[in-house]
This record gives sequence, C-alpha cells and structure tokens, in this order.
Amino acid sequence: MTKKPKYQAPFYGAAYYPEAWPLEQIDEDIRLMKEAGMNVMRVAEFAWARIEPSYESFDFDWLHTVIDKLDAAGIATIMCTPTATPPAWLTEQHPEVLFTFPDGRQVGHGGRRHTCPNNPVYRQHCARITHRMALEFGRDERIIGWQIDNEVAPHYDFGNPKHFFVRACCCKACHANFQAYMKARYGNIQALNRAWCTQLWSQHYDDFDQLPLPDPSVWHHPALLTAWDEFNAHSYIDFVHEQAEILHADTQHRIGTDMMPFPEIDHYAINDGLDIVQYNHYDFREGFRNAAFWMDHMRPIKERPFWNTETATCWAGNVMTTGYSEPGFCRANSWLPIALGGEANLFWLWRTHWAGQELMHGSVLSSCGRPMHIFGEVQEVSKGFRDSADFLNATKPLNTGLALHFNSISHHIFKNQPLQPEFNYTAELMQRWYHPLIQRHYRPDVIGAQVELDAYKLILSPMLPTLEAHDLKARLRAWIENGGIWVAGPLTDIRDQHCAKFRHAPYGVLEEWAGVYGKYQFPGYPRHFTQRWADGAQSEGAIAHDAFEARDAETEVLAWYTENELEGLAAVVRKPMGKGQIVLLGTQPDEQALFKLLATLAADAGVAPVATGDSNILCVPREGAGGEGVILVELDGKPGSCRLPCTGKNLLTGESIDGLVTLPAYGVAVVQYAVN
Amino acid sequence: MTKKPKYQAPFYGAAYYPEAWPLEQIDEDIRLMKEAGMNVMRVAEFAWARIEPSYESFDFDWLHTVIDKLDAAGIATIMCTPTATPPAWLTEQHPEVLFTFPDGRQVGHGGRRHTCPNNPVYRQHCARITHRMALEFGRDERIIGWQIDNEVAPHYDFGNPKHFFVRACCCKACHANFQAYMKARYGNIQALNRAWCTQLWSQHYDDFDQLPLPDPSVWHHPALLTAWDEFNAHSYIDFVHEQAEILHADTQHRIGTDMMPFPEIDHYAINDGLDIVQYNHYDFREGFRNAAFWMDHMRPIKERPFWNTETATCWAGNVMTTGYSEPGFCRANSWLPIALGGEANLFWLWRTHWAGQELMHGSVLSSCGRPMHIFGEVQEVSKGFRDSADFLNATKPLNTGLALHFNSISHHIFKNQPLQPEFNYTAELMQRWYHPLIQRHYRPDVIGAQVELDAYKLILSPMLPTLEAHDLKARLRAWIENGGIWVAGPLTDIRDQHCAKFRHAPYGVLEEWAGVYGKYQFPGYPRHFTQRWADGAQSEGAIAHDAFEARDAETEVLAWYTENELEGLAAVVRKPMGKGQIVLLGTQPDEQALFKLLATLAADAGVAPVATGDSNILCVPREGAGGEGVILVELDGKPGSCRLPCTGKNLLTGESIDGLVTLPAYGVAVVQYAVN
Amino acid sequence: MTKKPKYQAPFYGAAYYPEAWPLEQIDEDIRLMKEAGMNVMRVAEFAWARIEPSYESFDFDWLHTVIDKLDAAGIATIMCTPTATPPAWLTEQHPEVLFTFPDGRQVGHGGRRHTCPNNPVYRQHCARITHRMALEFGRDERIIGWQIDNEVAPHYDFGNPKHFFVRACCCKACHANFQAYMKARYGNIQALNRAWCTQLWSQHYDDFDQLPLPDPSVWHHPALLTAWDEFNAHSYIDFVHEQAEILHADTQHRIGTDMMPFPEIDHYAINDGLDIVQYNHYDFREGFRNAAFWMDHMRPIKERPFWNTETATCWAGNVMTTGYSEPGFCRANSWLPIALGGEANLFWLWRTHWAGQELMHGSVLSSCGRPMHIFGEVQEVSKGFRDSADFLNATKPLNTGLALHFNSISHHIFKNQPLQPEFNYTAELMQRWYHPLIQRHYRPDVIGAQVELDAYKLILSPMLPTLEAHDLKARLRAWIENGGIWVAGPLTDIRDQHCAKFRHAPYGVLEEWAGVYGKYQFPGYPRHFTQRWADGAQSEGAIAHDAFEARDAETEVLAWYTENELEGLAAVVRKPMGKGQIVLLGTQPDEQALFKLLATLAADAGVAPVATGDSNILCVPREGAGGEGVILVELDGKPGSCRLPCTGKNLLTGESIDGLVTLPAYGVAVVQYAVN
Repeated sequence: MTKKPKYQAPFYGAAYYPEAWPLEQIDEDIRLMKEAGMNVMRVAEFAWARIEPSYESFDFDWLHTVIDKLDAAGIATIMCTPTATPPAWLTEQHPEVLFTFPDGRQVGHGGRRHTCPNNPVYRQHCARITHRMALEFGRDERIIGWQIDNEVAPHYDFGNPKHFFVRACCCKACHANFQAYMKARYGNIQALNRAWCTQLWSQHYDDFDQLPLPDPSVWHHPALLTAWDEFNAHSYIDFVHEQAEILHADTQHRIGTDMMPFPEIDHYAINDGLDIVQYNHYDFREGFRNAAFWMDHMRPIKERPFWNTETATCWAGNVMTTGYSEPGFCRANSWLPIALGGEANLFWLWRTHWAGQELMHGSVLSSCGRPMHIFGEVQEVSKGFRDSADFLNATKPLNTGLALHFNSISHHIFKNQPLQPEFNYTAELMQRWYHPLIQRHYRPDVIGAQVELDAYKLILSPMLPTLEAHDLKARLRAWIENGGIWVAGPLTDIRDQHCAKFRHAPYGVLEEWAGVYGKYQFPGYPRHFTQRWADGAQSEGAIAHDAFEARDAETEVLAWYTENELEGLAAVVRKPMGKGQIVLLGTQPDEQALFKLLATLAADAGVAPVATGDSNILCVPREGAGGEGVILVELDGKPGSCRLPCTGKNLLTGESIDGLVTLPAYGVAVVQYAVN
Repeated sequence: MTKKPKYQAPFYGAAYYPEAWPLEQIDEDIRLMKEAGMNVMRVAEFAWARIEPSYESFDFDWLHTVIDKLDAAGIATIMCTPTATPPAWLTEQHPEVLFTFPDGRQVGHGGRRHTCPNNPVYRQHCARITHRMALEFGRDERIIGWQIDNEVAPHYDFGNPKHFFVRACCCKACHANFQAYMKARYGNIQALNRAWCTQLWSQHYDDFDQLPLPDPSVWHHPALLTAWDEFNAHSYIDFVHEQAEILHADTQHRIGTDMMPFPEIDHYAINDGLDIVQYNHYDFREGFRNAAFWMDHMRPIKERPFWNTETATCWAGNVMTTGYSEPGFCRANSWLPIALGGEANLFWLWRTHWAGQELMHGSVLSSCGRPMHIFGEVQEVSKGFRDSADFLNATKPLNTGLALHFNSISHHIFKNQPLQPEFNYTAELMQRWYHPLIQRHYRPDVIGAQVELDAYKLILSPMLPTLEAHDLKARLRAWIENGGIWVAGPLTDIRDQHCAKFRHAPYGVLEEWAGVYGKYQFPGYPRHFTQRWADGAQSEGAIAHDAFEARDAETEVLAWYTENELEGLAAVVRKPMGKGQIVLLGTQPDEQALFKLLATLAADAGVAPVATGDSNILCVPREGAGGEGVILVELDGKPGSCRLPCTGKNLLTGESIDGLVTLPAYGVAVVQYAVN
Repeated sequence: MTKKPKYQAPFYGAAYYPEAWPLEQIDEDIRLMKEAGMNVMRVAEFAWARIEPSYESFDFDWLHTVIDKLDAAGIATIMCTPTATPPAWLTEQHPEVLFTFPDGRQVGHGGRRHTCPNNPVYRQHCARITHRMALEFGRDERIIGWQIDNEVAPHYDFGNPKHFFVRACCCKACHANFQAYMKARYGNIQALNRAWCTQLWSQHYDDFDQLPLPDPSVWHHPALLTAWDEFNAHSYIDFVHEQAEILHADTQHRIGTDMMPFPEIDHYAINDGLDIVQYNHYDFREGFRNAAFWMDHMRPIKERPFWNTETATCWAGNVMTTGYSEPGFCRANSWLPIALGGEANLFWLWRTHWAGQELMHGSVLSSCGRPMHIFGEVQEVSKGFRDSADFLNATKPLNTGLALHFNSISHHIFKNQPLQPEFNYTAELMQRWYHPLIQRHYRPDVIGAQVELDAYKLILSPMLPTLEAHDLKARLRAWIENGGIWVAGPLTDIRDQHCAKFRHAPYGVLEEWAGVYGKYQFPGYPRHFTQRWADGAQSEGAIAHDAFEARDAETEVLAWYTENELEGLAAVVRKPMGKGQIVLLGTQPDEQALFKLLATLAADAGVAPVATGDSNILCVPREGAGGEGVILVELDGKPGSCRLPCTGKNLLTGESIDGLVTLPAYGVAVVQYAVN
C-alpha cells in the first residue's frame, strides 16, 4: 500500500490572489475557506511582477507565507507559472515580446495573454522564471500540482467587447517560424504546390520563403489558412511543452495547463507529456450540456481524473456581470466535473477583485470580504464531496463502449471551408449528436482522432472531413473488421490531409467501404431535402445531401431521397465489413430518424442507455474497487426522475433508493448500489 | 441704470457663411433675415483659410463688410475662432497637427475637428490666429460675443456614417501629455500602483513613462481607460481655455464655446472661466425631453442665460437628410431654450450650403435662396420673442428646490465599467428619472457634482458611482444634516476616486449614513427582482439589486425583496440624518413605485409640481422684476391642457388665461400672471 | 458572301482550367464537353505562373495542346490574359505591384485582382505578358476572342466574407495619379476651389499636390469622394485599354473584358475601343430580373451581340455553397442572355476545382469528374441552341423605342450623397422602374447617358442627378423638341458636373423646361407624402418630394400634394416642348400611379407592350433576315401563359403555336412567327 498523500480528492477550492490584498488579511480568508469546506487554492497566476519586481530580483517570501498558512489549515496549493503577464520592465525593454497585429502594430502593456508565443526573448524569459520557480517550489509537498500559464489559445478575444478579434500574432518571428513549420511538414516546396493545386491563381511558390502570412483582408487559399491555424496551435503547444520539460526536470509534482473549451488547440495534443488535464469553463445553465460534452472529451485524455480548474460560483464578469444563475446552479455546476470523471472543482475566484479588469465577476466572497449568496451551496457541495469521497475515489465512470469523434482538425478544416453559411462544426456536433445522446441516457466518450478504438463497440464519426490524420483510416478499418459498428457522415472522409478534395471520388474510401457510387452532392443549405426510410417514415436532411447508388450486393439502403434530382437515390446505407459494419449517412437526418437508427445500431453493438427517465437528468454510472453506483445531476432547473437498475443509498443524504430517484431543480444524488 | 446695450435679447438668428457665396448676395440675404425677424448672425466658424489664405497674410475686409451690413440692418454678430479647420498650407507643412489614429496613421486634410489638441505647432497657430482676430475685432461693439472653435469633443464621429469611431488622438504628444497628466495627478507611481491594484496581471509600473496609451484592441484596466478619457476631456478644456485667455486679454466681449450634448466633457468644467454657456443640439420631436434635460443642465452653470447656439429649423443633414419634422416643430424647438432659461436661439444654418459636406441640412433659406417651408414659423417665433421680450428679459425660471445629479465622471466610470450589458448612464438617467419628472411637472435643475447644494431641498443622486470628486461627500453630509432630503442609489457611492471598489463595504459611506449592512449585491441584468412595499404594493427592480439588513433603530425599511436569496432583505430604506434624511435605493424601482416614493419625499421637502395637466406640456414658471408667469411648450405633437395656479395673459396672443391653458400640437404660450 | 467562320454562334461552353489537372485528363474532359453539346472553352485566366514560371521563361506548350485538342473536337477557344494573378516571383521582387490599404499596409501574395492598377512595374509586366501572348496566339484561327484580365472593379470584396471592404488601392502611385487626373480635369486649382466651394471648412487648396487621398475615416467633401471613385474607375479603364491596344496590334481577334454587374465602372466607357461586350453574373432565381436589367444595359453598348462570359450552372461557392437552385434554373438562366441579345453563354466552370479558393462552386462536372445533376439541362439547352441557331443568328431583339437611363455617374453621386438613409440608386431603379416595366411586358433598352437618343420615342430618366455629362442636356432638348417624350425625376438635374447644387434654382433646367417654380424640396425619408391625381386617384410618394407652382400656361398639373406645407402644390407636371413633351416627377409615385401615367405616355409615344400575359414570362420579340418571332423565358419558377400577336412554331419542340404559349416553371420557348 502506497503512502497516503497529504491531501485527498475530491479537491475543492478556488483561485486565490493574495497579491491583490494586504497580506494580513490572509488569516480571515483562510478562516472562511475552512468554513466553506475548501481544501485547495490555486496561486501565482499572473503574479510575475510581484514575484520578480525587477530583473533577477525575486520575492518569494509572500508566496511561501501563503503556502505555509494554507497548509496549516489543511489546504493544498496549486502553483501557476505567471507567464501570461510579463512585467512592465520586460515589455518596456523588449516590446517585441508582445503580440503584433496584422498591420504591424504592437500591443501595449497592461493586458494578459497578449504575448507572442514565438518571440525568442519572451520564450527565454518564460523559461527563466519557470526554472526559478521550479527550484523554489519543486520539492514542496504542500503543492499538489502545477498549472502552466493560463488559457493559451491562438484565436481569442482580447477582452474588449467592442473589439473581439483573432489573436494570432503576426510578427516576423511568427512568419519565419510558420515558413519553417511548413518546410518541416512538406520537405520541399513542390510537394506543397502539388498538394494545394497552386497552379490556380498563380499561387505557385518557388520557395517556402514566399509563403505569405495570411492577411485577414485577402481571399486566401483555405489550405494556407488551415496551415496557419495549425501552426498557431503548434506554437502554443510548443510553448507549453517547453515549460513542462523545465518543471518536470526540477519538481516532483504533476504538471498541466488550464485550457478553455475552445477547439483551436487539440486538448489531446497539448496534454501529451503533461500529467493532469486541466479544464476551465464558464457555461451557465443553458450550457450545462456543452460543459458535459467537453468533460466527456477531457476524461478519455488520460487515465488520471481531470481537474476543473476554473468555473463560476454564480455569474461571470469583466467590467460587466453576465450569466446570473438561479439557486441551485452552484450545486449542479460544482458536481458536474466530479460526476463526469474529474477529481477537482475550483472556482474562479475566491474573493472578487476590488480593482482591475475583472472586478464584476462572481466569487465566494465579495470584494469587501462578505460571503456571497451562494455560500450555503458552496458548503453543501463540500460536505457532499467529503461524505462521498471514499466512493468517488474508489470508482470511475463506466465506459459503455460508445464513442463520438470530435477533433481540432475538423474544426480547422470547417473554419476555413465552412461549406455553407454559418456552419459551426462544434455547435452542430453538440446540438445534433451529443445533446440528444445524453438526453436519452447514452454515455459516450467524446474522443480525439488519435484515441485507440479497441475500448469501443459503436463509434459515431459525423463531420470528420479527413481520415488521414493519426492513421485513422487504417485503424478504423481494422477495428470495424474486428467487429466494430461505425457510423460515418455526413461530411466524413471528404478531404485529404491537405484540405483538398479527392479527385477519384467524393470520398477517400467511403464509396469502397460502403459499396456505393456517390452520384450527386447537394449542399445542406438553404434547402432541406426529405428522405423516406425502409419502414415508410419520413425525415428531413441537413448539413449535406450526398446521394448514392448502391453498387454492392451487401449494401443495404436504409433511406432514400424523395425530391428533385435526388429522388430515388440512397441517403443512408449499411454494409457489413468483416465482423463489423459501416453505416454511411449522406445527410444529417432529423433527430427522430437519427436516433431511431442509432437505437438499432446500439442494440446491435451491445451499447445500452444507462438509465430510464427524464431527459433533464444526467446519469453517470461508476464502478471500481469502491463498488458500483451512479451520480445524477439535474441540468435544466426543474424536477426530474430517473429509474436506476439497482437499489442503493444516496451518499449525500443517507436515504435508501429503491430504483426511482427524483431530484429537485439542480439536484444531485450520489447513489452507491447495494451489493447483491 | 446701465447703458442699454446695442442689441436686445432674446437673440434670434442663424449661422451665416458668407464666404461660401458671392459677396454681392449679402444684401438679399439681409433683406430676408429682416423679413424673418432675426437679430443676430454667427460668422467665421471654419473660415481660417478665407481669413488667412497664406501664412501671416490676412484678409479681414470681407468680414468687416459683413459686420457692417448686418449692423446697418440691426443685426448683431457673434464671432467665432476658426480653429476647427486649419488651412491646407498649415496641414501640408505640419501634418502632425492633424489627428493620429491608434495605428499611427494621420488624418489628411479636408475634414473638421480633425486636429490634435495637444500638438504644440497646432496650439501655437491657434493662439496666433485667435490673438490676431482679437486685435481685429475685440473692440467692435457690433459683436455681442465670441464662440471658441466648434463642438470640441474627444469622442466623436468623423462624420462618415460607415466609420463612426472614437476620436481621441493617439500621437506621441498626446501620449507624453497623458503620462505627465497622470504624474501630476498621482505624484509618484507607487500611489498609482496602490490605487489601481496593479499587482494583478503584472500591471505594476515602475515609472509613468511605462503607462501605455490605451489600445482599442487590448483588454485594459478600466481605471487606465477612465484616466485616458478624463485626460482627453482635459486636453480640450485646456485647448479652449487657452483661447479664452487670449480673447479676454484683448476683447471686451463675452466668450464661450459651443458644445454638443455629449457627456464626455464636463460642461461645468469647460465653462469655468468662460462667460456664456453655449449649447448646440439636433434633437427632433422624439428628443425634445432629452434637449430639455440638457438645457436644465446648462442653466445652472452660470447666472447669465445660456445661448442655444445651434439647432435645426426642420431637419438635419450631411449628405443625407434626417429628422424631417412635422409642422410646428420649428416653433416648439425655437422656444424650448428660451423657456428653459436661455436668451438666444440660433439655427444652423441661414442658407443651405450649395456644395461641401453638409449640403442636405435644413435651414431658413434653401441653397437657391428660397424661403423654406418653415419660414412662416420662423417669423411667428420672432414676433413672439419681440412681443414677450420685456417679460422674458425681466424674469428667470423659478428654482423649485429640486436637483438631479448628472456628471461627466459618472459617464466615464460607467463607460469603462458598464456593470451590465448595454448600460447607458445618460440614457438611463433621462428615461428613468428626468422624463417622468417633467411629465409630472416637476422642475429640476440637472446639476454637476460641483454645484453648491444650498439652493436645493430635495436632491436625487442615482447612478452617481463616486462621491469623492468635488468634495461631494462632505458637502452632501453637511447639506443633509442641515435639512436636505437626499435620494441615493442605485449604484451610488460604489467606487472611489480611482474607479475602484471599496474594500470595507459595498459603499464608501452609504452603509453608515443609512444604517444598513449590505448583504448581497445582485446584478440588474438579465433578471429583474421584485419588491414589496410597506403598503403592500409590488414593484420590479432594475439597474442593480443591492439588498440590506437594517442595522440602526432609526432606519426604516420602505421596500423588501421577495425572491431567491434576496427574499426578506431590504431594497429601499430611509433614515434621518440631522435635520434631513437619506433615502437609499438598492434597486431602481419601476416608474410607478419610484414616483409614489418621490411624491412623498417632495412633499416632505416642500417641492411641488409647478402645474397640473397633461404630460405633453412642459411648464416653466418664471419670476423676477418683470413679475411672474410661465412658459408652456407642447412636446409631443398633439393637443394638451394644463391648469395654472393664477390668471394671466398669453403674451403671444394677448388672450386672457383663467387658469386652464390648452395648446395645439407644438403650441407655445407665454403667460404673464396678473398682479394680485 | 463572307467566308463562314470556323465556329458558329450561339456559343455555349465554360471556363476551363486544365492547369489544375493532369494533362492526360483532357481527352475525357473533351468527351464529356461534346456530350454536353459545348462548342467553346475559355482558358488561361489566372494562369500567369503556369505560362511564365520564371521571368521571361515561357511555357505555352500545354496551352497549344489544349487548343489543338479542343479544336479537334470542334470546340473553339477564348483566350484570357492572366494579369489578375501575377506570379510569386514578381510579387516577391516587387511587392509594390500589390494593393495598398489605407493604412499603408500591402496585400500579400495568394489572392486575385489584388494588384494596383497604377503601379508602373505591374503595368509593364502586364504589357509584357500580354504582348508575348498576342505574338503566341494572335493569328490562331481556333481562338474566337480574347478576354482581358478578369472582373476589374475598383470597389470589390476581397473574398473573405468576414472582411468585405472597398478595394481602391491607396499607394503613392495612385495618390500621385489621382492628383494628376484632377489637374487634367480642372486645369488650375482655383477652378477646383470654385467648383467645390472650398471656402467652407478651410478646404481651399493652393495646389493639386495638396489634394488628399480620401481616408475612409475622415468626413470628406463628397465631390472629393466622387472624384476619387471616378479616378479609380478611370484607372481600370486605362489598364484594360492598354492591353486592348497591345492585343489589337498583334492579333486578328475580337477583344473584350469580362465585367460583373457593378455600377462602379461605366460599361459603356470601358467597352469603348473593345470589340465584344463581356458580362459575368451570378444572379439566381430571385435575381433573374436584375440579370435582365444588366443584359438590357449590355445590349445597346454595341451592335454586335454581347457574351455572357460567366454564370453558374446550379449554385455559387467559394469555400461555402450559396444559391442552390431548383430544377429548370440552368435552362432559364442559360437562355436569358440569348433571349436578351447575347450570342454566348459560358458557365463558370467546367469542372469544380479540387483545391484552392473556389472549391465549392457549382459546375458541369464535379471535382471527381462526374456529371452534375444539371447535366441533362445542359444538354437540353445545347440542343435548343442548335435547333434554333439559324433563327437566332439571323434575327435580333426588337427595339420598341423605349429607354431607361442608368449610369455610373449617378451611382457615384448618390453613393457619396445618398440624400437619405440606405438609398441605393441601382436597386431603386431596378425595383421601382425596371421590374414593373418588364412585368408589364415593356421592352426597354437600359442606356448609358452617352447613348444617342434618336432610336427612342419615350425615355425615362429618374434619379439622373446631372445632365451635364456627355452633353446630355442639349441632346435631350433637341430630341424632345423633335418629338420625344421625356420623363424626368425624381432627383433628376439636381447637381452640376461637380456634384454641387445649382444656386439659381433647385434644378439646372427643369424649372424652365417644365414651366414650374420649385417651391419646396422635402426629403423622401422617413415620411411618405400623398398625392391626388387629376382623376381623383391617390398615390404615395417616395425618394423625394419636390413641390412646384405651375408658372407657364402650357404646364399641366397631373398630381398635387395633399399634406402639410406641400398641400396644393404640384407633384407631377407635364408640358409640351416643341414637338415633344416633358413630364416632371417631383416624387416617385407608387407603382400603380406611376404605371398608369406611363401607360398613357407610352401610348402617346407609340410604345406598346410586346405581349399580353402573366408577369412571370419574359417576352423578347426578335426580327431580322431570319424573320420574326419571340423568345419567352419563365422567371419565377411557376407556370405562366402569354398571348402572342401571331401564330408560329416553337423551334425547341417543333410545336405549332396559335397565339397562346404556356410555359412550365423555368420553361423556354423560341417562337418563329409564321410568314403571313
């Protein structure tokens, strides 16, 4: 048996900025943290100027005091590298460390995450401060982990609501690195010319040095724009990995980087080499299912439970308040990451700032140190965490064998080739696939393209335009032939790895795999074409209308188009492949038709809903050394019921459950099943 | 008895641009001016290039001719400094005198008010031409006053409807002056660091030289943005005051500067040291009450009546016409400033330009010299001015003891900390407080924070975030304790002078003064929380929902919240303070509830409505050596009646009034009360 | 009898980009072109880098192969100069050849039509490649014409839907050329100063060198903005004409330039000196009548039939698909230009690109080489062209004596002086005048101001602000006095050639011609004023409300205003002038009133509708050596009938027609009348 760690999950706490307050106030803060039932604080984010007020002159005393006092109260520390906000002495001497606009202008001091990830001076200083902090805190047992920087993202709001725009830095270092990145990818320029068909529009390049940095006002080649997006993601991944290496060398702690639910950077790629998946979100009631989507995407990244490093207690706010939430929100929102496989929930923030950019944000204590209205809910949650900790720590969410593909590559391709007006890949995937799945009590993993497939029996891959990344094509084929059921389309396998169309067929391999000939490809907008299914039901398509002729005896047509030139052509087909089968969707059927089909396929695959009950209840079964059970969270702010397969006990109330659980608005239950 | 001045108020006229027309046309113009009944023309605005066609070569002859001819017809002149439009020989030689965009680009020649207020070369040339004009015209008795420049404003449209944006110049001179301004304000940089909590986000500055000029695309500290806004206002105030000093030294005339109804520059501050408050507005029918708000704000600035230096006769227009108005508009619009305490109404403009930027604007004569459709109304107004001149000149609007606070500081703070989406301080103040007040026939002064309070019995101070400017906190306390009734909140006393929150309480002094403990502060958006009043009435809050516990025996709770965590907490309280009392609003109650409360408070304070009647009639009582009476103006384009407290005579018609006055659409009456 | 040309009209084909595909694929392409019934391909557009991969190293072999193989299949070639897309070796060495933004930044490589039309280096290289191509292909009989560049336009989208903006280059060469252009126009600067009234706002210029390049953020003089727009049009005209001269010197072919339906460049002016009017459009069903408007504008430019060089087969698309069209669209859309006097219809494009910027565009073959769903319609159209070729080639659309003025000058003036919010000259002209005309089966020419008037009996000139260009005033007077009926206004003759108002009257000559005195000019927005007509009917005005007093005994008032100060004044008048008459509209009456009036005038003029029937049928009578007949096209996607004046035969079906023709949705008939 290993030594029990100093602090126990679930971790419950907040972001703490003692540098903004008189140090003598910390004791009162800690008193209230204890009263709130918290056991972790996240510190030093953005505090570079406090830590290093002038070059190579460090002040860590205040931070040691904070850690000491927190620990004395039984509260662990998460340490952050402060690199998102370089000090003024650095930006004054080296303004080039800051972001450059497309017009060549440089951002001034005073923001955050307003730096160039490729600037060598900035990178050197980031490495230096990270190394210095590793030496200072790397062996401190009171620290349970590190957060690198904060919410890195290449495309992001600078915060001024009037000037939302794309953030990718356009300096000469970025341009040169981009050209080098492209050279590394393509090897020689003729390969790029061939892959991009640069004979059109005299786009032929003689050298990588000629590759332009895309200008927002130019009608650029979508492959150039996609490459630029991928390069920007790569820059941040590289930036984070450099800090991770430094920290790993000189600390004993687990390292992560807290990221927002943005698809621009692949969470799987950036977490490769990190230890703890860290995730921030500010979804309110309306976005609970979106938050669940991202958590179902975070969980499969690593075996170890993820951390929800930031979320709101009650509302968000910069210089204005947004997202006021009704009573119970804090409860449901705090349990959501725990239910979905995380082991930590930290609020942003402990005490609202009294000045600065974010002084209207919700928190645990107000700016004048008074408990906010959600304090009672905060305490209720902490008690619940403690009461169910043994069960939580000894169980994990069940894998039901169902996966939904989602990845950054698809986002980049569709961003630069949206195919139809206002097409938003992530939103479509969530609203047309993920939300209805969990409303019907299916429990999917939302997996990146690089994830191993063996653990799954049914994989859904809509809107996955390329199968060429991560060797997915070969891996899918092997998995299907070994018994998997794969649902492909609409808009799957329509591009090669260079964002180009195939020239032999509308798809790379789907015609061959599904035994069809793709006769026509109609757009999904503005006209929705109807289908007739084998049982006579009608459905309405969307997203795309690809129409097939079945060309293989084994190919079964499940639905036919009924209008215009598409009439009589197949819209949905199924074909066996080895021990498995492929289902090819030429269109996105409406929810009723799609889920009638998926129910059949799930049954074939042995994938079952995890409960029976109202669609507003999220049910997450768990199992492990601690037994079996389920966590239930009400998502829509209204009562709801769910029937469980076993009897059990609600660990939060001690009540016995005989199968039917009824939750109030935003209610939560942690049910441990009785041992039969 | 002083010598009777050459020209008598009320002044009635227009802006006149003889430089745009053949000089021989002036006689016909003057013939029509006389026919219209006008007695003043405003000249030389924008005419720098005409006056000084090349450096130090002046041509004043044409202008003397204009003044001579106008005077010969009994028409006075208002002289303008032409500094809003430097000549091409100056901008060619010194392009740096023109505005610089955030990206460093400079505006080209050909606009107006497109200069940098801090550029030393521009300032020298402005001083030079102003001094030269003072020498030329400073002793001319036919001139009744000067206007400095035109519509100075730091945030303003450049005129192109497609490119509305913020105007503050971003040149190096502005940046350096901003840093110097901040140094003068804070003394040393650590004071600024402390006041702004710059430990957050590494915003700590080592020197004022590091202070950035705010970039519109950066997520800046709101205190920096507010300081920048204040600096820009300061730059224009300084620019105007420099010209005022030069003119005062060499003229015998009264000096002013005509400003638009924009809250960016404090009208009280810029008029400090000037002689005549000058005000331009282009409100049409829908905006009559807004215009009244601003005139009620202009009147208290000085003892001397203000001038309405610009308004439209019928519609506005740059290269397109906007604001067509129904018959009667010109009448009501011309009387509005006279009713509210002004002594002049000048149209923009006499004759519509035949070319250039504003050739679609309404006027008195069309571009081809024909009287416009409002010519009859123009004559009717001038006759009315003459017929009631003795009464008007010997009376002034009555001060009823009621004041509403409004100031530029609040605008700047809320602009940079709007607290909730789309919060517009000025619009909220007008729509929720001022409009209902005058619809109920209250007559408020709309006062800046620097105004002495002794003249008032009831002061309303909603949305006044800081009490630290102009020593208002101490002055209010003394005034209340001496018997004043003060209505504070919502959102009053919530920030210190550095735009920061207080750390001891949600307010600076309101908890102490009102005897409450501020338990929760809920936002005003998107959820409106209800209140129950002592008499059982219900109301709906807005703007903010601050909730209190009464902590003083004298504190009387007037309304309680009824929902969520706010339930049972106080929303509105009242407490005696010395001989007076404070009423603290934690929320903005709906109109019905607010005005039920205000009616009670007004009665307590001895502040009464000035008439009884329809809400579309504006009633302004007057008194003075000329007796007593009232001016009535119909604002909504429909008939309306009002009952006056006395009998009297309508000086415009000679009719006797026996208490009830009925006005047609846009009707006006000037009633002199019979001597009892 | 002349030698029969190698290829016969109607020309039917597509844009072909063999450079994007393996050359060996061309045989299969040609097989399918033949199957589609095509007889022309347009090549080399954008292929500069393929033709000249490095400086002065040319590769024409592939292009000769293409022409050879096409010809062998009976398919003619249209050759393009590839100057819209300079190669990377050129833009790398001379970045100044590319477009400069207002902020001085230069566009990078990789777009199209992103060059500066005034840059001398670019112009030299364009001349060089054009000359080289002329030498290479100028005597090739398989080439039936040349297209210069592609869709030149000074104001245009760069293609990124998020960054639509104005394209005019702002480099120093453009600025200097603009000043020289203005000097050439005005001769000396004082003439400009006088014409623009630059005494206002100190806009007086001492030299043309001071004239600013208009900044989008400055409130500029509308005459400056208009001059800048005209200069930009001039730059592109000059650019095209330089290539035309080079081509004419060394080729035997007809030259043209394909332009989009944009009013920025006068199609009459740019085609002056060219041989073939070439026109591109992407109007879908909703825009069929707009397309007809432009084709009625193209036809009168030259005697020779125009070419519809680009249109869509089914939908448009860059990186997203737009404009999906129902079955039959391709048929009606392909016939439209033939019906309206063209002799060619070419699709953009033959085979959808497999990569690059426009890979979602509709075509004849999909990217993988499969016939698209419209292939059957394409074949049907080609068969129809062949079956009716003799009739088409030996007849032309009938001129009915009706003309509607439309020109670029009006566009420029109203763009910079819109007079009222959201006023769009072209849209108003189409929706209020052209659409109702053709729905009532009138057949107008839509003529530029430079067109000779003798061929017409009734000319409609609404919204023609200046009569000073092209000596139109004198030519109109002579034409009216010789018997023409002219409908002028609203907003006609309201500006001089310098975009200024007249100073003697609201119009230049309309008061004199119509015998009226313009008493008031009310705007057309937001208030619509009503009129009463002589027969008692009511109508509602728009666009403008100019009101007259009749001052001539011959002046007949047709309609009077009935509201406000306009009441009793004339809104519409008529007066004889010599043998003709003028009708002056002070306002835009509603459709019913306007067309009641126009019906009377048309009858007076001997201009009759060409058919009786449903408004969804476009009827275009033809006559010539080939006899008489009519082409009918259904425009609204629903059945419709039309009664023809004669019996005849539908050449597409062989059916006899006895007067009544009924068309299905998007149906077409080519009826040759029986010889009586």
